[in-house]
Amino acid sequence: MRHPSDSQRRADRLVVLGGKPPRAPGAVWLVGAGPGDPELLTIKALKALQGAQVVVHDGLVSDEILDLAPAGARRISVAKRKSRHTYSQGEINRMLVAFALEGLNVVRLKGGDPFIFGRGGEELEACREAGVACHVVPGVTAALAASASAGAPLTHRGSAQAVTFVTGHAAKGAEPDLDWTSLARPNHTVVIYMGLSMAAPIAARLMAAGRDPATPAMIVENASRADERRVVTTVAGLAEAAAALGGPALLVIGEAMALAREGEAENETLLKEARA
Amino acid sequence: MRHPSDSQRRADRLVVLGGKPPRAPGAVWLVGAGPGDPELLTIKALKALQGAQVVVHDGLVSDEILDLAPAGARRISVAKRKSRHTYSQGEINRMLVAFALEGLNVVRLKGGDPFIFGRGGEELEACREAGVACHVVPGVTAALAASASAGAPLTHRGSAQAVTFVTGHAAKGAEPDLDWTSLARPNHTVVIYMGLSMAAPIAARLMAAGRDPATPAMIVENASRADERRVVTTVAGLAEAAAALGGPALLVIGEAMALAREGEAENETLLKEARA
Repeated sequence: MRHPSDSQRRADRLVVLGGKPPRAPGAVWLVGAGPGDPELLTIKALKALQGAQVVVHDGLVSDEILDLAPAGARRISVAKRKSRHTYSQGEINRMLVAFALEGLNVVRLKGGDPFIFGRGGEELEACREAGVACHVVPGVTAALAASASAGAPLTHRGSAQAVTFVTGHAAKGAEPDLDWTSLARPNHTVVIYMGLSMAAPIAARLMAAGRDPATPAMIVENASRADERRVVTTVAGLAEAAAALGGPALLVIGEAMALAREGEAENETLLKEARA
Repeated sequence: MRHPSDSQRRADRLVVLGGKPPRAPGAVWLVGAGPGDPELLTIKALKALQGAQVVVHDGLVSDEILDLAPAGARRISVAKRKSRHTYSQGEINRMLVAFALEGLNVVRLKGGDPFIFGRGGEELEACREAGVACHVVPGVTAALAASASAGAPLTHRGSAQAVTFVTGHAAKGAEPDLDWTSLARPNHTVVIYMGLSMAAPIAARLMAAGRDPATPAMIVENASRADERRVVTTVAGLAEAAAALGGPALLVIGEAMALAREGEAENETLLKEARA
C-alpha cells in the first residue's frame, strides 16, 4: 500500500490544478465483482473498473460487467478452459506486476470477494514483492447473495450462532480435507464454495461426524444471476439434489436454512414494480 | 417472496407503457449498507434507497448514506441509545410490517449485510407472517472490508482453508458461549464481530483450547470509514491491543493475518491519483 504524505497529496493537487500532472505510477486493483448481478457491484468497484487500462478477469465475470470498463481498456481472460492455454497462478501474478510496472492501471476482476477463495492474497503478495501498489476493493461474496435470494439468513437467533465458509474444491477429484467434526456441530451454518461435484461425499462425511441428516440445506446455482436456481433439501438429500444441477453452485447447510425458499431468480423488475 | 408469472410481468409492463399503473402494494427491503464507506454500497442498495418512502436504520449507518434516500422519505433511527427509548426487535418488526401494509416502500437499512449478525432473519419472518413482500439486498459485510484494507486475505493457500464468523456479543456482559475447540484449530481464520470488549476472555479461551499464542491477529475499528484504525498483533497480544481502541471493531485471528498491514484508512484520493 502506498501512503503518500499529506504534503505530497497537496502537491499533487496543486499540480493537477496548475498544469499537467506527472505520470502516475501503475497500480493493481484487486476488485470483487460480486456474485454476478451487475447491480451487486459496489460503487467503488464500478469506479475502479471505469478507471482501468487493463482488466484481467476470471470466467465467472459476465460481459455485462466487463462492458463497464472503458472501451479502450485491454481485456484479458484468465478463465480456465479446456481448449486453450490455462494461466497458472504464477503467470497471472507476473502479468499483473508487469502491466503495473509499465505504468498501467490494472484491474484484477474476480467473482465475489477477492479475499474469499479468490487467491487474491497470492496476487497481493506478488505485488508487494515487486514494489507495486496494490489496492483491494471488497465485494459481495456469493454466500451472501445466495442467502439473500433464498430468504435464509446465514446467522439467526437460536439456530445459527456462527457461519463458516469452506471450499469443496480439492486436487484432482480427491475429497476435500476439511475438519468434519467442527463442521458437524449444530446451531452453525456451513457454506461450501465449489462443492457441487463433491456434494455426496461431503454430506456423508458430515453425517458420519454427527450432523443430523435432517438438518436443512440448500444448493444455490448461479446466485443472483438471471439463471439462478435454488433447491431446498436436507443433509441427507444433498447428493440427490446436487445431481440435478450443473453450474457454479454453493452448498449451504444449517438449521437456519429452514427459512429458505426454493425457486428461481427474483426478477429484476420487482424493484421497479415496487416503486411504480 | 412474490413470484409474478411471466404473463403478469408482461401485463404490468403494458400498463406502465399505456397508462397509469395500479397502486403497488407496500414492501419491505432489507438492505445491506456495507461497512461504512458510501462507495461500498452496491448499486442495488443505492437504487432501493432512492426508491424508499420510509428508511428505518441502525446507528451504524452514516448520514452520508442516509442522504442518498429521497429528501421526502421518512427516516427512523432504531439505534440503541442510552438517553432515549430503545426499540426492541419486536417493535422494529411490527413497525416495518405496519408501514408496508399502509402501501409504503420501506427500506430497512443495516450496516454490513442483513443476514450476517444483522437480525434480518427475524424481520423477514415477521414480514412473511404478515403476508408482506420482503426482498433482501446483500451487502459487503465488515469482515470483507477489514481484510481488504489490511491487505490480509480471509482465506489463503496454505494458511487459511476456512473462515468462520462469530459474534463476541453476549447477554449482559457475560462471556460469549462459543465452540472454542473448533475456533482454536489452526489454518483457519476466525472473525469476531462486536468482540472488542470481550477481547481478553476470547483470547484466553482460544489459547486454553490450544490456539498458538503466536497466531497473528488484528483488530480493525471502523473498517472502511475515514477514521478506520488497524492494530496488528497476536492472539497473546489481543487483550492489550483492544484496550487502546474504542469504536465498533472486529477481531480477526488466523495465520493469514501475517499479511496484515497496520495503519489508518487508505485515503480515498488514492483512487483518483491512480487514475490521474
